[in-house]
Amino acid sequence: MFEAAEIGHRIPKEEYRTKEARLRQDLLKAQYDLLANAKFPVVMVIGGVDGAGKGETVNLLNEWMDPRHIVTRAFGELSDEEAERPPMWRFWRALPPKGRIGVLFGSWYTAPIVDRVIGKTKGAALLQSIEEIRHFERMLAAEGVLILKFWFHLSKDAQRKRLKALEKDPKTRWRVTDTDWERFKIYDRFREVSEYTLRETSTGEAPWMIVEGTDPNYRYLTVGNLLLEALRKRLDDKGARVPSYVPAPLEPMLDSRNILNTLDYSQSLTRKQYEKRLEKYQGHLNTLTRDPRFRNKSLIAVFEGQDAAGKGSSIRRITGALDARHYQVIPIAAPTEEERAQPYLWRFWRHLPRKGRVTIFDRSWYGRVLVERVERFCSEADWMRAYHEINDFEEQLVRNDVILVKFWVAITKEEQLRRFRERENIAFKQFKITAEDWRNRKKWADYERAVCDMVERTSAGTARWNVIPANDKLFARIEMLRTLCEQVERAL
Amino acid sequence: MFEAAEIGHRIPKEEYRTKEARLRQDLLKAQYDLLANAKFPVVMVIGGVDGAGKGETVNLLNEWMDPRHIVTRAFGELSDEEAERPPMWRFWRALPPKGRIGVLFGSWYTAPIVDRVIGKTKGAALLQSIEEIRHFERMLAAEGVLILKFWFHLSKDAQRKRLKALEKDPKTRWRVTDTDWERFKIYDRFREVSEYTLRETSTGEAPWMIVEGTDPNYRYLTVGNLLLEALRKRLDDKGARVPSYVPAPLEPMLDSRNILNTLDYSQSLTRKQYEKRLEKYQGHLNTLTRDPRFRNKSLIAVFEGQDAAGKGSSIRRITGALDARHYQVIPIAAPTEEERAQPYLWRFWRHLPRKGRVTIFDRSWYGRVLVERVERFCSEADWMRAYHEINDFEEQLVRNDVILVKFWVAITKEEQLRRFRERENIAFKQFKITAEDWRNRKKWADYERAVCDMVERTSAGTARWNVIPANDKLFARIEMLRTLCEQVERAL
Repeated sequence: MFEAAEIGHRIPKEEYRTKEARLRQDLLKAQYDLLANAKFPVVMVIGGVDGAGKGETVNLLNEWMDPRHIVTRAFGELSDEEAERPPMWRFWRALPPKGRIGVLFGSWYTAPIVDRVIGKTKGAALLQSIEEIRHFERMLAAEGVLILKFWFHLSKDAQRKRLKALEKDPKTRWRVTDTDWERFKIYDRFREVSEYTLRETSTGEAPWMIVEGTDPNYRYLTVGNLLLEALRKRLDDKGARVPSYVPAPLEPMLDSRNILNTLDYSQSLTRKQYEKRLEKYQGHLNTLTRDPRFRNKSLIAVFEGQDAAGKGSSIRRITGALDARHYQVIPIAAPTEEERAQPYLWRFWRHLPRKGRVTIFDRSWYGRVLVERVERFCSEADWMRAYHEINDFEEQLVRNDVILVKFWVAITKEEQLRRFRERENIAFKQFKITAEDWRNRKKWADYERAVCDMVERTSAGTARWNVIPANDKLFARIEMLRTLCEQVERAL
Repeated sequence: MFEAAEIGHRIPKEEYRTKEARLRQDLLKAQYDLLANAKFPVVMVIGGVDGAGKGETVNLLNEWMDPRHIVTRAFGELSDEEAERPPMWRFWRALPPKGRIGVLFGSWYTAPIVDRVIGKTKGAALLQSIEEIRHFERMLAAEGVLILKFWFHLSKDAQRKRLKALEKDPKTRWRVTDTDWERFKIYDRFREVSEYTLRETSTGEAPWMIVEGTDPNYRYLTVGNLLLEALRKRLDDKGARVPSYVPAPLEPMLDSRNILNTLDYSQSLTRKQYEKRLEKYQGHLNTLTRDPRFRNKSLIAVFEGQDAAGKGSSIRRITGALDARHYQVIPIAAPTEEERAQPYLWRFWRHLPRKGRVTIFDRSWYGRVLVERVERFCSEADWMRAYHEINDFEEQLVRNDVILVKFWVAITKEEQLRRFRERENIAFKQFKITAEDWRNRKKWADYERAVCDMVERTSAGTARWNVIPANDKLFARIEMLRTLCEQVERAL
């Protein structure tokens, strides 16, 4: 696919001058329209051969447009805060908010390609990375991000000439390092791996655009025009939304049996049994999180459940076993303004724990397929795609030494009614019951269906749901502590 | 001041049980009131002697209250992202938003005390740290933060006994490390330095509370009661706001001469002179930011000025000299929701650059003493205190290898009118002129006064204002580039 970028494209000076003047005016206008519209962000991925003019082009874009609304990020060595999270964390934190243009130098393509070129990874690993990147970009596109991927290409001969020319000029000599020449030696291999990767990741929602890097005028106009065209198309297309699709129908529920109503809710513990086991499992959990092996892991516990199921009190029994210096509880309510300007999962990525730490989510990313589905806060297409987006997300966690434990805390409809009434009758519990709780309760069947679909579609391998019958609070708390201990122990 | 915490306070078990039950209910209630009220955050600073029960107490507070709304942070080794910013950066990023309780383990007291105890610093350095802490806490208090500082104390004898007891029990042995015994050896010195520091930092807005650590029941109830009392007092005191003061009057302006209207606005450059100098200074600036010595520095450039003074175009001439991978431009507009939940300067701290990077603020923290003063978005007391808060902030930057360069881009009232009209008449410039600009213009004299006060009060030593006459845009741009080069060069 690089052939078309080795044919010596060239724009004469005069032509460039005329076209550039017009282009920069249009780009600036488009940038301000984007800012005023503020409905979507633009992510420009910049990759390619060394010396093909990536840096100059990005600098020029910043000159043509208003640099105050462009966020340019380069990704060098991992900081230690980055190294302790899944690899995609650093990219999530660099995503531009709606209305802005983010220029990513390096991006999620660098490591997979370079690692394969130098033989650090096998072909299977590259294949897996490609698959992950496709999922990631599909998710971004579905969230409304305009993704533009530019690959700056030079033929082997052109690269040699370019590096030599840079070295010759005292003003640019500093730009050519030993690494550049080291990399030049493996040009053919680099070309092969990147061509393959680009082909495999050139999708409908995020196609690669190959830019011949030899002639500066040509590459500047090419990138500028492509950016302008993509921006205008998206900005002017009033009717069109993110390409949607008709989701496949979910399995019908042919009988009334489901994973929630077939639980054994009669299990219970006496206060005495409870006290004894609480001490035992809290002690055990404490020991586990102080295990030297835990220092290279982190723990994420997710709590979902019906209103009044006892999530809060269960969480307190777990934090009671931990050192406050090592855990954070993240209660998930309505997203903040900064969170709303980002893709859905951004607000969860930002809270991922460092190594040796515990993060407890009180409600979580599953809101997408629960409350947002039932209350129609998002479209069917949005929550349907959320299942595989969530599976991707959790796979990344687990693959990067996160111990992920998920609980659905389940009570029956009758038990919920009892607890609501109790809350209304006891003075110091009244703040716990609101009109919204009663409203949600009316949609019990819808929520039940959503929960069953969720468990079916997001309970796999290392990220299994633990559905806990919690009509008896004591039983449920111990069950959760026990499960948590078990799953942490297994993962160490 | 530790004597009162060495008298063997003790609470019998039965009394503790009764009081605890009541206390935790009241604390929980107060916590929810705080959350519902969401007008101020609570910062609990936890310090003291090893083994005095700091960790247990914090864990218990998390058990008594709802841990979902408590943010506990411990400060161990600096991460590399923290090490590249001023020391206070890590604490700013740990501040709880309004409505939440933040528990800070370690805090800004640890380094000054420990460094002095082990002889790493002299008394003068400690004195300076104390002064800085006082300023910092006064600023927090003025911003509405409820600051509660707890010092857990043990007599030397009690500490020895405590460490021995912990070591003896297999369940707690892990908690006693060699470091603890090392530190025990310097108990007297530690006591001396910390007593001095505490006395000096026990201010009206943020007094220290000394807690005897020997008896768990006593220390739990003490901390719980103090927290409850402080919370209730602040929550119930409807009328009272943050203690205000009557600011001293500003100097009268006895004649009409001021720093703005005595500038020489006639200076100008021809296009030809401009082109030549632009190339020269852009080249120079580029070389300077690639200087190896710059890798241990960072650059913050602040741009303030009247509407239409040409800040944006000047910034573009500067970014034009830089590599987009190394700078960020931060345009300051209305704060986001997350920013509004924090002290005023928080939104600027979050954007401080790492080493080797450049951050350009298009408008800045000076908004407090400019637009917020003139438009009465904050009280006179608020903007009056802002001068020294800003000076403190900038001192921290400069002391920590930030090269800080501040520009006031000045035009005359007539020139502004000409530019406003021009903007209205040229199609592609119309987006640059709004009704707000015309409104601001009516307050020209108020803004002028505010600028003069600002320059007078925040232009000192290494953080001087560069007031640039900018009726001639070409002259102004070169003047700013030249100044920037000069100041960066001097700082390297």
